[in-house]
Amino acid sequence: MNKACAHALHLDAETREQSRRRLLSIKGHVEGILRMLEDESIYCVDVLKQIKAVQGALDKVGGLVLRSHLHDHVVTAADRGDTDQIVTELMEVLKYR
Amino acid sequence: MNKACAHALHLDAETREQSRRRLLSIKGHVEGILRMLEDESIYCVDVLKQIKAVQGALDKVGGLVLRSHLHDHVVTAADRGDTDQIVTELMEVLKYR
Amino acid sequence: MNKACAHALHLDAETREQSRRRLLSIKGHVEGILRMLEDESIYCVDVLKQIKAVQGALDKVGGLVLRSHLHDHVVTAADRGDTDQIVTELMEVLKYR
Amino acid sequence: MNKACAHALHLDAETREQSRRRLLSIKGHVEGILRMLEDESIYCVDVLKQIKAVQGALDKVGGLVLRSHLHDHVVTAADRGDTDQIVTELMEVLKYR
Repeated sequence: MNKACAHALHLDAETREQSRRRLLSIKGHVEGILRMLEDESIYCVDVLKQIKAVQGALDKVGGLVLRSHLHDHVVTAADRGDTDQIVTELMEVLKYR
Repeated sequence: MNKACAHALHLDAETREQSRRRLLSIKGHVEGILRMLEDESIYCVDVLKQIKAVQGALDKVGGLVLRSHLHDHVVTAADRGDTDQIVTELMEVLKYR
Repeated sequence: MNKACAHALHLDAETREQSRRRLLSIKGHVEGILRMLEDESIYCVDVLKQIKAVQGALDKVGGLVLRSHLHDHVVTAADRGDTDQIVTELMEVLKYR
Repeated sequence: MNKACAHALHLDAETREQSRRRLLSIKGHVEGILRMLEDESIYCVDVLKQIKAVQGALDKVGGLVLRSHLHDHVVTAADRGDTDQIVTELMEVLKYR
């Protein structure tokens, strides 16, 4: 358990529920691509378009969670005294986003 | 049905099977994040890390399909005479990859 | 002048100097591509490689400035009371990074 | 000199000129950021916005050159017999675009 957990930094309930619903839809989208791939005559670009759509949907979930993290935990890091950890782990996760 | 389909441009069987296997694994990964999100004490950055991992895995599937498309269909477009369509749809799908 | 400026949120001197030095090098790199483009026999992929290299160098400057912003200004937003503004402008600038 | 050069695959004159003009503008933009960075009271997010704008402008030049390369050289690779080289170097340059 890391220091942040010890500080009880949790994803807020509403964002958690929104992310869950979006990820359920993303799971359905991935299952749709899996069905596409059973078709021998599938065209490459149609697969690429679907993958791109899933990436876009994942970007949106990531954006929700990131905004919530910034709003609830990052802006209060100086108060808690865990600035270095918060900044380092955030920079790591933002790389190649 | 678009012109490319009429030309019978199909994703090759091996790439189709590799993509299917990788997407099955990605589906499992998304299910894992869904389970994480049932936990009230989940930490935002742990969710962000998992989303990033799924994005990376999708990038790899996309790379497989793209390489196959370039190798099997794009390099022969001049012969088939569908260069403009092939280039336009490829540029569209590469945007913000 | 926006609220953040009113709060005197400045880029720290060291990051400013590092960014300046890196951007000078990036400017030189862009000038190098401009010279390449005067050559009639230049190969497309060689241009694409150089553009990619400049993008990578810009990503690094962006990372320096972002880390400094998170460390010096974002983690203290709750104390200053400008959380909403700080989060909104940061989310905007992180989009498609 | 690589095989592609030996095949005389050159960036077409119009794209070369368009790219040159856009890169001149990008150079000016970078010089503008350099001037910003001389100001001790510069705000981080203003720098990040300008870097993002330059990245967007570079993406557009890259898109021009890529489209030209696809249209003039990639679609004819099967005819020339250099498919493997063309695909490999293209995949390399598209990574993390």
